[in-house]
Amino acid sequence: MKKEKLHLEKVLERVQPHIHRTPVLSSSLLNEMAETDLWFKCENFQKMGAFKMRGATNAILKLSEEKKSKGVITHSSGNFAQALSLAAKSLNVPAYIVMPDTAPEVKKAAVRTYSGKITECPSTIKDREETANQIQEETGATFIHPSNDIDVILGQGTAAMELLQDHPDLDYIVCPVGGGGLIAGTALAAKFFGKNCKCIGGEPIEADDAWRSLKSGKIETNDSAETIADGLKTQLGDQNFPIILENVDEIIRVSEEEIKSALRLIWERMKIIVEPSSAVPLAAVLKEKDKFKNKQVGIIISGGNVDLSSLSF
Amino acid sequence: MKKEKLHLEKVLERVQPHIHRTPVLSSSLLNEMAETDLWFKCENFQKMGAFKMRGATNAILKLSEEKKSKGVITHSSGNFAQALSLAAKSLNVPAYIVMPDTAPEVKKAAVRTYSGKITECPSTIKDREETANQIQEETGATFIHPSNDIDVILGQGTAAMELLQDHPDLDYIVCPVGGGGLIAGTALAAKFFGKNCKCIGGEPIEADDAWRSLKSGKIETNDSAETIADGLKTQLGDQNFPIILENVDEIIRVSEEEIKSALRLIWERMKIIVEPSSAVPLAAVLKEKDKFKNKQVGIIISGGNVDLSSLSF
Repeated sequence: MKKEKLHLEKVLERVQPHIHRTPVLSSSLLNEMAETDLWFKCENFQKMGAFKMRGATNAILKLSEEKKSKGVITHSSGNFAQALSLAAKSLNVPAYIVMPDTAPEVKKAAVRTYSGKITECPSTIKDREETANQIQEETGATFIHPSNDIDVILGQGTAAMELLQDHPDLDYIVCPVGGGGLIAGTALAAKFFGKNCKCIGGEPIEADDAWRSLKSGKIETNDSAETIADGLKTQLGDQNFPIILENVDEIIRVSEEEIKSALRLIWERMKIIVEPSSAVPLAAVLKEKDKFKNKQVGIIISGGNVDLSSLSF
Repeated sequence: MKKEKLHLEKVLERVQPHIHRTPVLSSSLLNEMAETDLWFKCENFQKMGAFKMRGATNAILKLSEEKKSKGVITHSSGNFAQALSLAAKSLNVPAYIVMPDTAPEVKKAAVRTYSGKITECPSTIKDREETANQIQEETGATFIHPSNDIDVILGQGTAAMELLQDHPDLDYIVCPVGGGGLIAGTALAAKFFGKNCKCIGGEPIEADDAWRSLKSGKIETNDSAETIADGLKTQLGDQNFPIILENVDEIIRVSEEEIKSALRLIWERMKIIVEPSSAVPLAAVLKEKDKFKNKQVGIIISGGNVDLSSLSF
């Protein structure tokens, strides 16, 4: 256990020169509403707008020089594609991104801004994997999974480590559950750097695969995932699930209405732009008020990449 | 001059227990675009969402106990009505707010949330002043002007003082120009606490009364003011104009398109919610890039109170 703690400390040391130390914000009004002290770790202010920059940076930095020279590859249509592209660009490493041909143009443009080399393919998982395999064979690039990779998991955990450096007495850290990378890293950080700090997940009822996985003890999938929290539709993986099973205290499920109402509170009261997934932990805290009453509660705001093109200015 | 410096220090000491020390954010992308170092003092995170909380708090704290017991009064339909109400509530002082009967319900509701006692009247300046006079006679409340009051001016200056404490080597502080309270206070702070730090105003071309006032040497008015920066439509006053005339280096005028584009950059890239007036200084810096190139530039983000009801979640 001591070894794992040392390991996480090294991860933080490794990534910190390459990422932002994001601020921790609070809101008296939200504290009043929740009857507790909430501390928001604002990864929406992270480079490229999401915590995923941490895991991507750590995974690339862990590669040998030879592997770095051949580049990295992932398949993603979301934040991880941008994170891997930007981290790779900063570290002077080529990044190959496999994206479904149905991905919105704005997301492709963001990857291109960060010099990611996009290959489009049909949107099935089989097509994505085959395309990625083919590029790997051609280039020798290393595949990096967005959430099911131990170096990615440990990198994501550095957000909670920083939060605990600023607020060592947290009773809980609550974070969203998507593919499981963030919550697995957060749970390890809470275990090794908190003082009896528990890690709790927030998950949409509409995509409650992780909640069901904790119950059944095996990785469950979503038949459908009709949630506004579009970053949380993915399922857990074999690398992060054992960590989650051992170290996550509980997963709280919230409805779409509860997510939307928490999202509005964050935008209107905290004056920050966050993506819907980031509102899920606040929704969970407000739903189970008694549990969190008069506690010190950390919340990971996962990111702020939302399409603002519909705004009227 | 030394006396005035001491005076401002006392103002900061006086208001600090009652306000937030707001964070200073930066954005590598905006720094790259502007080819300079920009430091954003985020008063959108201030209590009630705007810098006006500072001036209102200082003005109330300066009153005698007897005057406090009789309350304060202002006429405003914007942020100052909310600021005076909240500051008065926190200090256990009654607040009377004269609002035009045309003011949006959402603004009236905000004032009521902070326990301000609203009197509605027709929206002409004459009606507002008469109504305020009548309430003053009835209650003995002290009238506090939103921007043309020396204690309000000095209170607003504390934002720039804090910014200079965090970044003592600023070459410029740029802030929006509306009624003149913020820029007068900012200019005094830059003069007394900066190292040769210049204060520059940003103003919409569509409401360029302050720019014209600096040219003519007398207070000019706007015939019309068709600007998205709705907090900047007001004109200077006899208390703040002499301070501005002596201490503001320059006012840079920007078009509506320039304001909108800066506003979008702040929302999209900095992930913070700011009101259109807050984008005017960034628009000014991007417009006159050569002037600010390779400098240390502070920007006052004045507030974040925008109506989000049109958002689709």
